[in-house]
This record gives sequence, structure tokens and C-alpha cells, in this order.
Amino acid sequence: MANPPLKGIVSYPVTPFDAVTGEVDLPALRSLTGDLVAAGSHAVAPLGSTGESAYLTDKEWDAVCETTLDTVAGRVPTLVGVSHWSTAGTVRRARVAARHGATAIMVLPQVYWKLTEDELARHYGEVARAADLPMMLYNNPGTSGVDLHPEAVVALARKIPNLTMVKESSGEVSRFRAIRELSDGELSVYNGSNPVALDAFRAGAVGWCTAAPCLVPEWVLALHAAAVGGHDDRADELLRELLPFLRFIVDHGLPRAVKAGLDLQNRPSGPPRPPLLPLPHDETARLRELLGRLRPDRLPPSAD
Amino acid sequence: MANPPLKGIVSYPVTPFDAVTGEVDLPALRSLTGDLVAAGSHAVAPLGSTGESAYLTDKEWDAVCETTLDTVAGRVPTLVGVSHWSTAGTVRRARVAARHGATAIMVLPQVYWKLTEDELARHYGEVARAADLPMMLYNNPGTSGVDLHPEAVVALARKIPNLTMVKESSGEVSRFRAIRELSDGELSVYNGSNPVALDAFRAGAVGWCTAAPCLVPEWVLALHAAAVGGHDDRADELLRELLPFLRFIVDHGLPRAVKAGLDLQNRPSGPPRPPLLPLPHDETARLRELLGRLRPDRLPPSAD
Amino acid sequence: MANPPLKGIVSYPVTPFDAVTGEVDLPALRSLTGDLVAAGSHAVAPLGSTGESAYLTDKEWDAVCETTLDTVAGRVPTLVGVSHWSTAGTVRRARVAARHGATAIMVLPQVYWKLTEDELARHYGEVARAADLPMMLYNNPGTSGVDLHPEAVVALARKIPNLTMVKESSGEVSRFRAIRELSDGELSVYNGSNPVALDAFRAGAVGWCTAAPCLVPEWVLALHAAAVGGHDDRADELLRELLPFLRFIVDHGLPRAVKAGLDLQNRPSGPPRPPLLPLPHDETARLRELLGRLRPDRLPPSAD
Amino acid sequence: MANPPLKGIVSYPVTPFDAVTGEVDLPALRSLTGDLVAAGSHAVAPLGSTGESAYLTDKEWDAVCETTLDTVAGRVPTLVGVSHWSTAGTVRRARVAARHGATAIMVLPQVYWKLTEDELARHYGEVARAADLPMMLYNNPGTSGVDLHPEAVVALARKIPNLTMVKESSGEVSRFRAIRELSDGELSVYNGSNPVALDAFRAGAVGWCTAAPCLVPEWVLALHAAAVGGHDDRADELLRELLPFLRFIVDHGLPRAVKAGLDLQNRPSGPPRPPLLPLPHDETARLRELLGRLRPDRLPPSAD
Repeated sequence: MANPPLKGIVSYPVTPFDAVTGEVDLPALRSLTGDLVAAGSHAVAPLGSTGESAYLTDKEWDAVCETTLDTVAGRVPTLVGVSHWSTAGTVRRARVAARHGATAIMVLPQVYWKLTEDELARHYGEVARAADLPMMLYNNPGTSGVDLHPEAVVALARKIPNLTMVKESSGEVSRFRAIRELSDGELSVYNGSNPVALDAFRAGAVGWCTAAPCLVPEWVLALHAAAVGGHDDRADELLRELLPFLRFIVDHGLPRAVKAGLDLQNRPSGPPRPPLLPLPHDETARLRELLGRLRPDRLPPSAD
Repeated sequence: MANPPLKGIVSYPVTPFDAVTGEVDLPALRSLTGDLVAAGSHAVAPLGSTGESAYLTDKEWDAVCETTLDTVAGRVPTLVGVSHWSTAGTVRRARVAARHGATAIMVLPQVYWKLTEDELARHYGEVARAADLPMMLYNNPGTSGVDLHPEAVVALARKIPNLTMVKESSGEVSRFRAIRELSDGELSVYNGSNPVALDAFRAGAVGWCTAAPCLVPEWVLALHAAAVGGHDDRADELLRELLPFLRFIVDHGLPRAVKAGLDLQNRPSGPPRPPLLPLPHDETARLRELLGRLRPDRLPPSAD
Repeated sequence: MANPPLKGIVSYPVTPFDAVTGEVDLPALRSLTGDLVAAGSHAVAPLGSTGESAYLTDKEWDAVCETTLDTVAGRVPTLVGVSHWSTAGTVRRARVAARHGATAIMVLPQVYWKLTEDELARHYGEVARAADLPMMLYNNPGTSGVDLHPEAVVALARKIPNLTMVKESSGEVSRFRAIRELSDGELSVYNGSNPVALDAFRAGAVGWCTAAPCLVPEWVLALHAAAVGGHDDRADELLRELLPFLRFIVDHGLPRAVKAGLDLQNRPSGPPRPPLLPLPHDETARLRELLGRLRPDRLPPSAD
Repeated sequence: MANPPLKGIVSYPVTPFDAVTGEVDLPALRSLTGDLVAAGSHAVAPLGSTGESAYLTDKEWDAVCETTLDTVAGRVPTLVGVSHWSTAGTVRRARVAARHGATAIMVLPQVYWKLTEDELARHYGEVARAADLPMMLYNNPGTSGVDLHPEAVVALARKIPNLTMVKESSGEVSRFRAIRELSDGELSVYNGSNPVALDAFRAGAVGWCTAAPCLVPEWVLALHAAAVGGHDDRADELLRELLPFLRFIVDHGLPRAVKAGLDLQNRPSGPPRPPLLPLPHDETARLRELLGRLRPDRLPPSAD
């Protein structure tokens, strides 16, 4: 059985931008990253979809990578999203991540033209060789336009030794079990779909990749503790309270929603980058309500 | 009724790469572009999906844009694909295209996060203002992951005066008529789905955006002449001969297939850029057969 | 090349029900059928989706079949929809249709459990043998839940000599050409998607299967005459006028919409059968407007 | 909180047919039904999809209903599938089920024409009034072509007091929780997707509707006991063993697969009814292997 380099709550920071100039706001990024570690995140994962990496220039990308990893400073493992259209671009980012000490890298099959099986294998293979780090395949049909089924994921992993982790964001809970079984337990599976967080842990996911700790870290960590501790009733109760919030941030786009929430908490991270626009006023008002119910002091006391 | 700046056969060149270094091969690009004009294309459209623009660095993109437009040198109109993830990146490319004398620009709603209606309007609006050129919205659900229906396209165009053209690649023929009627004829519609080329002209498309002229320009132009000249039987016959080839290049990915065909014609344009790989041998053999049936001397004589 | 038993406008009557008892109203059916023939329909097709055959008992089904065929009395060809869940039920209906003198039968792959290729071939084969009539395969993914692509349709037809006609209701115009070519012209193709009526004729459909002649027969027949006569401008003009109406009856369900229209024309056919409910008032008002624009005297004069 | 009339393992018998005459084999049905009760099923559910009710005549349907309910004879609750195309047909079956003493009825929104919200409400409302029994809405987009989302299900249930149970066969685990919460716990949720059986119990499903007890009742009941008893490791182990079998019977169609399995166990139930054909030989051989691993004596000993 695999002993994966990441477990538990893998927290995804947004990338703050200056509200006036639109440039990356590195001090705000340092502050947010520090908060995620201080709150007890089990890992930090910059430059995912939440981090708006698709909208960054290479130079900005490098700065966000370096700043985040320097701030974490090895206190918890790190997972860096290095996806790019071209193989060369992905390899470049993987090397930058390795140079700055990333624990692992995450790669979406983010393709303009649909890739053949051979093309996928070569793409992942080249990136794996370039970085020599544990690699997570990130399946997210909603943003990549490609859905890699468990059979395809496991076939790919058999060809690439570094490919030891899979992040499933399709929301299909049966895939967590399927990937583990098809790979004879060699692949560790992570959940990337917030609304099925609890079902995923119960179906064998070793981690939850989520931006929710930017806003409500106590609740997310309590849910994880209840799920792995076998406190089923408490886990169910916590999820019931969290669900409206989790659905809201997913439905409204993670960068938009999390940035609006940080503003409400007086931890400004600026607007998302165009074409994304800030969350409209009425939706921000709804988010305020949802966050009000999830204040740290409202966390139900644990039975332990 | 609109009098669009582009009509007829809009030819999409691939972007040649050096087979050894992998760098953009500008002399080969000049040669291919010159061929497309000499063959009688009614317009040339660099940096579309076929041009692998998703895999180019900004610097490469600029060089391809400049080289293509300089080679065309105003002999026919040009349409430059300027899509980029971010609004800023799209604006930058639109300005480069304008500076080099593009007739028009084409913009795919190429989005990582699904855009709201307001975000789409602002994205297209900013690009339109930056370039001050006629703009074509390019709807291609297969590559962009977003399907803009005729109602949404027309609503967007009403807000943005420059947005006067739509390229429909969904393959749904009823949309050509729907877009023209919903816009009271203000929007010109172009077909981007090769297999429905003839149906599209008959349903009112004013142009066919296609990479096929890279390989069989005589046939493509003859089909267009028959379609607009009302020679229905000849048009049907030509399409019947062309269809297996058109389906092949679509099914195998345009850059892969067109580059393999150029090699077969001793007009090397190098391999596609990874993650894309060259067409496998057996598929190339099949393409050789298909091209053999479409030699210029096999074109059926016109009745006129 | 095939010489199919049906061509042109194939008119689909609704099945009238008594407004009080809910029973099949055979006199009203006779009247409507007579109107369709008198108006110039090239064929009449009872017991299709429009005829609510899914909601009839076997005894009612037999009565509708007999009454319609007796009323047509051989003046034009007839096509009877004999689909049923079970093979035995379909065979029974096919035999009833044959006994009453149907010209041809139509069979939807109307399946509860998805059928394998062998099961489909055996189902169609048994029905074909039972009736010994020309058979039309009816592909309508929207109601049957199964989409038979041109390759599958042609493969099936090769095994079953009677299967010589295909009705395509997917709305994908490229399929008309594909089916004819894949079958080397052996299969005749009919269009069952109202909004693409003109595109379908231009792409080689030999007939249009439609309920629209129940309400606006002059317009439908004029469109057909213009399309086959090569009067492209007139055909385009007629379709432009017809389209809002065609889209309305498709979007609101053919039995609901056609029955509401017959009421507006003082040719009552009763309500549809539950679970279907009559068209609501506001939608009926909209239909009244659409029909007002399509009065016979508003038909543009022909140039001939 | 609701106290539903059914809980635990709800077993779905196939409908046996005589191998020679093709007629319903009532003695075999009695025998199979008796086996299901004797094995410990918590409820028996005749005339579902598994029971091939779509292929039965009304007379056959009535006989299967009566025979099954008489055989169960009140030893466990019963749930009868009464779905029919028309409202009148569904009402008739609901009354037959009530007359023979059914505990509850199950209704699929099995519609030929897509129903409006009003039509759905009236259809379910009329059936509910006719039978005056607890009613289960059965959502199975794969066979009905309609997907009723949790919001729509709960809205419908608020209008119809008898509608107190929902069977979800979409396989989306998040819906179990969503339906319970949107209905404030008023709706009891049952799982109809075999591969997510364990996830469903963990997400709050009160029952598992399944044909698997026809072949491996000990395993199914042991899984349920482990799941509700909180023996997570044992439940995971049992599901791991069961999954290949559960996936097989779902992928090959329940009536085909279960009937082939009964034959292998020398409990013949005849072939499925055409258009369905018996499972082919090679697939039956595979099923033999899968069943071999699930013999009752292979059940892992319980820790208790």
C-alpha cells in the first residue's frame, strides 16, 4: 500500500492581485499562505484552478510559486499546479516548482486538441522525468474538457512510476474506490469536489483538495477529524452545516467566491483577473450570511 | 444587410516547426502562406486552432502573425486568431494583429472558469475596443468547452458594434439560419465544421473557414464556386468526393493531419508541437490514399 | 438507386379524443385524415409520436389504424407507426397494419433496456418478416433515448432487406448525406426534425415527416414545391415565415400544440391524453398569433 | 423524521418465462419469491425494471402482481412497480397492487413526451389518490430519459402527501443527502445504483433496491448489516468482493444477467423476453466465475 506524501486537508490559496494595478500582490499572498499553515492545513497547494494560474504570465507564475513555497518553508508539504497547454511549458513549470522545493506537482490534462492515449502518456512521462517529484494527475472534466475514467488513469499510472496520486473532481464517488482497486492500492486518491467531501473520505480518499480553508479552516479541519476518527454523527452534522457554503463557492467559481469572502473577512486579496469579474453585490450578501453561520465560535463542541 | 470584410474560402495555415529544433519555421510558413494565396483563397487566417496558437509563446505568436500578414501583403483579407486565457493577453494579441494590418480578428470564448454573461460581454468588449477591427466570435464547443447558442451570440453582438461575424463550428446547420434571422441579417455567419460545408452555404453561410486548402485547394474552391453558382449537382458530386478526406482531417486533429499531408506532398512543415505527436504510420498511409483521389487532375470538368 | 414508396410531404395526424369521455373520437379522426389528403399531402402516417400511440390500448390502436387507412382508401400511400416495447407487441401491430393495407411501417427502437446490436437486428428482423412491407427505421434520440448513428443504421439495413427507409429526427443535417452515401444510395432518407426541413431537402432527404400539415398544409406544400423545384429564394422566404411556428410546435410537444391549433381553427380534436395536458392559455394565445401569420391567403405568390 | 414502511434490502425478482412457450412461469416466480423472503430480504419489489414489466401485457402484469404478493403473504413489506406510459394505465396498476395488499407502490416518470412540471404533478397526484398507499418516486435517467433533480423531487413531494419515498438510481451519491436536507428529513431515500451501495448507506439511504439477492443474498445482507452496524472495515471488504459482480449485472442488463445467473444455479427462470436476448456464452462464463467467488461459504466470518 502506498504511503503518500500528502494527506488530509490540502489547502488551495487564491492568488491575490492589487486592486489598483492588477499586479500580483505578493505580501497578501504571503499573509494568506501563512494563515493556511497556521490554521492547521495538512498541505498547501498553490497555482491550481483556484490560484487563477491560467491567467498568469510565466514571470508571475514563477513569483507566486517561489513566494508560496518560501512562506510555507517546509512546515507542511506543498503541491504545485504546473499545468500548461504545451508539454514544454508544463516541463518548465515543473522544474521551477522542483527548484523551489515543492513536495509534489499536480498536472491537469489541459489540452486544446484532444490527446490520443500515446500523447497523454508522453506528456505525463516527460513532465515526470523533468521534475523527478511525486506527481498527481488532476481529473476535472468541468475545466479541462477531458474526462479520464479510472481505467484510463490506472493504465497511464502503470507507465509512469512518479504518477502515484490522483485528484478526482468529477464528483462521482464510486471512482475513489474504483481507482484504488484497479491499481491494487498503488494509487492514492484525493477528492477535489467539495460537496462530496465526506462521502469521498468514507470511500477511501486520503485527502481533500479544497479552497474552503481560506475562509472557514476550523470547520474543514473538524470535518476531516470527525471523518477519520469514525465520529460519523458529528461528521454528518458538520457537513450539513458546511454544505450550503461549499455549494455556493463551487457554483459561483472558486476565485470569485473566495476573494469576495476574504474581503468580507477584512483580509483583502483584490479582484479576480479579467475575464473574471468580482462577485456581484447580491451574491456577496448571500455569502456574508453563509459565512456568518460558520464563525469559529459556532463550531459544535466535540464529544471527545 | 451586412457587407462582411471576408467571404468565400477562408484558409487556415498550420504553423510549421523545424523538425530538429522544434522552433517556428518562418520560411516554411512564408511558403505555405504564399501557396494559399496563389491557389485562390479568398482570405487567409493564421493562428487559429489549426495554427497551434495554444502552444506558442507570445514571442512566437507575434512572429507568426507578422510573417503571415507580410506574406499576404494585402492581396486578400486576413483574419487573425487572437484568443488567450486572459483578457489582457487577448487584448495584447489583438493590438499586435492590428499593428500588422489584419483585416479582422477572431476570438474564441476560451475560458478556464465558465464566464457569466457579464464577463463574456466585458471580455469581448475590451478586445473590440483595443483593436478597432471587425471581430468574429468563434463558437467551437469541442475545443472551448463552452457552447454559445444563437440567442446568446446575438445578444452579445447587440452590445458590441465591432462584433459583426460569427464562426459556427458546432456542425448544427440550423444555427446558420437562426443567427442571421435573430440578428435581422446584421451578423454574417461562417462555417467552421468541414463536413457540413455544402449544407452551410445552402443555409446562408457567407464563408467556410477551413484548413483543407493547405492540401486540396482546387477542390475546395471548386466546391465553393459550384455552391454559390447554383450548380447543385456538381456541388453534391464534389462534396461526395471530398467528404472522406474532410472527415479524416477533422477526426485526426487538424494540425496532425494537415502536417502529415504536407509531408506527403513534399512541402514539409515539421511535426506538431508536443503534447501533439505526428500522425502514426498507418493513418498516414490512409491519408495518402485519400489525397491520391483528390489530385488536381481528378477534378471533374465543370459543365460551364 | 432506390425508388421509395413514399416521397414529399408525409403528414402525421393527431389522434382525436372525446373531450368528455376521453375515448378515441373516430369521426374526428376521419375528418382530419380526409383534410390531410384533400390538402395535397403526399402520404399519411398515423400512430406516430404525434398520434400519441404510446398512450393507446391495443384495441384503440387497432381502431385508429383501421379508420385512418380506410379513410385514405389508397388515394395516397400510408405509413403506420407500429412501435411497441416488446417484439411480440410490435409484430402484432405490424400485422394489423399490413392487414388493413398499409403501404409501409415505421419502427422506433423504443426500448426500455438498451439493446445490443444482436438484439436490435433480431427485433427489426422479426418485425420485417411478420409484415412483409417496406420498413422505415425511425431514429429519434429525444423520445427513444437511443441514438443510432448512420454507420449503425446502414449496418442494420444490410441485414434486413425490407429496411429501405430511415427517418432521421436528430436534426443533424450531415446525417442525410452520410446515410445515403454509406448505403450507396440504397437507403432513402426522410427528415423528422421540422426546423431543418429545407436544409434536409437540400441535403438529399426525399421526404419530410411532419404534423404541420394538420394546421398549415398550404405553406408546407409550397415549401416542398419550392425546394424540389430549385426556387431557392422562394424556399428560403417560405421557411423564414414558417420557422417560428415550426419551432413552437416542436418546443411545446406536437400533440399538445397541434390539438390546440385545431381548436383555434374550429376543428376540435379534444385534449391530449394524460399525463399530457392541454396547452396553457398564454401559450395558446401565442399559437393563435403564429397561425394568423400563416393563413392561406398570406402565402406569397409564386413567381411561376 | 419519517418512519418509512420499507428499510434495508429491498429485493427485486425477475419475471420468469417458460423457455418453450415464452409465457409467464408463475410456479418459478413463486419459488424465486419464496427464496428471497427465506433469505432474509427486508422487502420484496415485483414489476420493476428487473421484472421486465415493460414487456408484459396487462393480464400478465396482474398475474405477476397477485402471485408475488400472495407468495410473500405479508411476511415482509412489498413495493410494486406500477409505471405505465399513460396516467390511466398507471392508475389501473396502482389499484390492482392495492387490491392485492401491496405495502407501497413505485412510479417512474416513464414518459414518451417530456412532461411539464404541471403534468408531472397531476400524473403523480392522480396515481397517489387512486391507490392511497405510500408512493416511491423512482428517478432513473438511464431508462426513463428524464432526470428529476433533488429540487424537483422535493417540490413534487410537497404537493403530494403520499409521496414519501424516493429511489435514486442516478448513482450521484450527493443526492441522497441533498434530498433529505431539502425535504427537512420528510423524504426517505433509497439507492437503486448497485455500485454505490455502501456510499449510499453512509450518505443516509435507508434502503438498497437491488436484484442482487436473487443470486447472492448472503453477501448483500451481510454488507447491509456491516454498513448499519458501523463495521466500516468489514463493509469495505464485502463491497470490494461484491463490486465486480454488481458492475457485471448492471453493465449487462439486470434481466439478462440475473436470469443467466439463476440458470447457473439450477434455478431456471427462462430467457428474457424479446427484444431482449439471453446473455451470450462468453459472458455467461464470466458470470460463472464471478458467482464462484461469492459462494455463501466464502463469506468472510464476522468479527462479532
